[in-house]
Amino acid sequence: MKMYDIIKKKRDGEELSAAEMAYVVEGAVTGSIADYQLTALLMAIFFQGMGERETADLTAALAASGTQIVLDSLKAVDKHSTGGVGDTTTLIVAPVVAACGVPVAKMTGRGLGHTGGTVDKLESIPGFSSALPPEQFRAQVAKLGLALASASAELVPADKVLYALRDVTATVESVPLIASSIMSKKIAAGATHIVLDVKYGRGAFMQEQHAAELLATTMVDIGQRVGRPTTAILTSMDAPLGNAIGNALEIKEALAILSGSGGSPDLRAVSLAIAREMVLHYYPHFSPDAAQHMAEHALSSGAAMQKFAAVVAAQGGDLTRPLPTASLSYTVTAPRGGYVAAIDPLALGSIAVDLGAGRHKKDDPIDYGAGMVLHARVGTRVAFGQPLLTAYASGVVSTETQAALNSAVRIADSLVTPTPLILKTVAATAPPDVH
Amino acid sequence: MKMYDIIKKKRDGEELSAAEMAYVVEGAVTGSIADYQLTALLMAIFFQGMGERETADLTAALAASGTQIVLDSLKAVDKHSTGGVGDTTTLIVAPVVAACGVPVAKMTGRGLGHTGGTVDKLESIPGFSSALPPEQFRAQVAKLGLALASASAELVPADKVLYALRDVTATVESVPLIASSIMSKKIAAGATHIVLDVKYGRGAFMQEQHAAELLATTMVDIGQRVGRPTTAILTSMDAPLGNAIGNALEIKEALAILSGSGGSPDLRAVSLAIAREMVLHYYPHFSPDAAQHMAEHALSSGAAMQKFAAVVAAQGGDLTRPLPTASLSYTVTAPRGGYVAAIDPLALGSIAVDLGAGRHKKDDPIDYGAGMVLHARVGTRVAFGQPLLTAYASGVVSTETQAALNSAVRIADSLVTPTPLILKTVAATAPPDVH
Repeated sequence: MKMYDIIKKKRDGEELSAAEMAYVVEGAVTGSIADYQLTALLMAIFFQGMGERETADLTAALAASGTQIVLDSLKAVDKHSTGGVGDTTTLIVAPVVAACGVPVAKMTGRGLGHTGGTVDKLESIPGFSSALPPEQFRAQVAKLGLALASASAELVPADKVLYALRDVTATVESVPLIASSIMSKKIAAGATHIVLDVKYGRGAFMQEQHAAELLATTMVDIGQRVGRPTTAILTSMDAPLGNAIGNALEIKEALAILSGSGGSPDLRAVSLAIAREMVLHYYPHFSPDAAQHMAEHALSSGAAMQKFAAVVAAQGGDLTRPLPTASLSYTVTAPRGGYVAAIDPLALGSIAVDLGAGRHKKDDPIDYGAGMVLHARVGTRVAFGQPLLTAYASGVVSTETQAALNSAVRIADSLVTPTPLILKTVAATAPPDVH
Repeated sequence: MKMYDIIKKKRDGEELSAAEMAYVVEGAVTGSIADYQLTALLMAIFFQGMGERETADLTAALAASGTQIVLDSLKAVDKHSTGGVGDTTTLIVAPVVAACGVPVAKMTGRGLGHTGGTVDKLESIPGFSSALPPEQFRAQVAKLGLALASASAELVPADKVLYALRDVTATVESVPLIASSIMSKKIAAGATHIVLDVKYGRGAFMQEQHAAELLATTMVDIGQRVGRPTTAILTSMDAPLGNAIGNALEIKEALAILSGSGGSPDLRAVSLAIAREMVLHYYPHFSPDAAQHMAEHALSSGAAMQKFAAVVAAQGGDLTRPLPTASLSYTVTAPRGGYVAAIDPLALGSIAVDLGAGRHKKDDPIDYGAGMVLHARVGTRVAFGQPLLTAYASGVVSTETQAALNSAVRIADSLVTPTPLILKTVAATAPPDVH
């Protein structure tokens, strides 16, 4: 097999075989294929796309490129979000479904750019450790039904090589490459069933609805072809999902939802929809309504809150100690009366990074207390001078940042219909063309 | 300026600016742009193509990437062939036009694969040296009106980098990249006027007529935009152009045409057509007929032969000593009577390499006496047993090679109309959109 022939084949619009995909992935990991040949292939894929069978073969080859976790339980249902702003769903969904009896062995990551990372949020809890050795990870899943660990470096090394090359060659924006990258990591982490929260809208990776739908369909198809049943929910990211953006602030909001004392209704609704789909994978004889009811009961009964507290304690965290807070704040008030028409998630996500809540570069330190909290959501009626949001930082909030915060919320005279929060659910219907 | 942005711009179908082209070429030469970014851009160019202005800007940037020869004469008319089998035109055209008073400062190359190189052919003449220092090169052009030297390594270093990357990433077959590569080398070698022999057909780099026409038009447009008037002639490469394939054998055929004692009429006709266009560039007030007549007279009068002999002598060659010959030969005879319907140039070119006349790899040695001579051309009426071609080699001609030789010539019952030998001439007509 020759890399030249593989590049030419793809360049000319032909589908690559499973053996060819395995050859490319192996060459990427071992370095036996030069980077300049890999990037030529990636650009050819950008233009020619990939077939469903081909995409699934790439995903399987990627997943097999490093350590593959095999969990003890018969079923391991995992969730993944394509990334948004104020998206604290994992911290709500995981204890909810664990409280429903669904074991959750959650590998999760750190934030980069305007989207946060679950590991960072959890590590804002005093004492919490996400670095679980594999045995402890498995033991905790067996005992508590839930463990939340940072993703091991040995998972899917080929994806790291290919993603680093895509990142500098303008080949990130390819649906089959994005889909195979995401799915390979879920598969290698041991998920037998996968629920995806695919965001669309201004603050999402996929801004266009049709692109998000295509990504969702592609990933559901991959899951079916590689024998890991997958469901995707398309949800709106036109505004921050939760009221809080920033690590300790998002932990506080998650605790508020878990305890029933408050939090964003949108964050609660999306979390319950994801939980419902995870419950349905675990209990396939349930109706969607029954699964939804089970998830809601786990919240309202306090069972999810108890599960979360037990897991935090098992991983060294102490919820009785105060969460980090920032010393300074700046509140944006309504410049006039009206209805909140838009809250720019991308702008607020970027400002949150500037405030210290996120990272510009991979090794930047994080200020756990920094970030912001929304006091109004899209559709809220506000009076002149009413607080819209408060930003928190350890240093002075610059006038530029204040101006950016002021223009991130738009007020209109009349109520604007927002995009649907939960647009649709995409699940595999018919068996794929098995090859 | 960032390479990422340049790749993305081209990926999205936009045209790159002259400054961006210069940045890429500079980065390729200095190594400041990584190979994996260069190949991603090359693949994006493969898919998105390049505009005329953009292609000319790339050509100019390539030409400026290394040494640029400035010749003393006001005009320096150069010729280039896109490569074929049995193509000895340079050895005929150069002395013909020099005998017409057109100074020719010819930089030429070595062969690789099934196409031969003029330097290799010349070096089969005992004593001939193609390694002329720049001062000697210029002095000989001034004195004799013709010098034939091997191309210096410092010409267009960026093209060497880019071509080596294209060669291993399936991005060679891009018309604007091919056109800018060829034209940049002619421009850097000091040509003020360029005549191109663009081949189409089975033995050509561009097999399809429309692709060859597009390449010709693209190069003529580049020439006009960079102020180096260019004419292209489209000629057929469905059969070997000359009767001889192989270095000393081609020298013998060139001498036969220069002395009027024989040689392929097709080779003579294409050589005269190229010479005509070169003469027209030098004497723009001439009519095409007058230029053609002048070139034919240079041949028939023996002036071209005298010029060639003087140049060979000036470069150390001795035409009175015998040319290298091969010790063994194998003659293919007609398996039946009929008309020669096809002679496969690609097959014969490859066999010639196997016989020792060419190189599989860059540093392979060459057997100057090896190769083959055709005794019949397409359209020739042959009787059973009549010799069709003779192959020459220093070692035994294997039975596989014999079989390949036997099947390279096809005999039919009736006369087949060949593709036109000289299809058309492409010259710039209107001034380009000057930017």
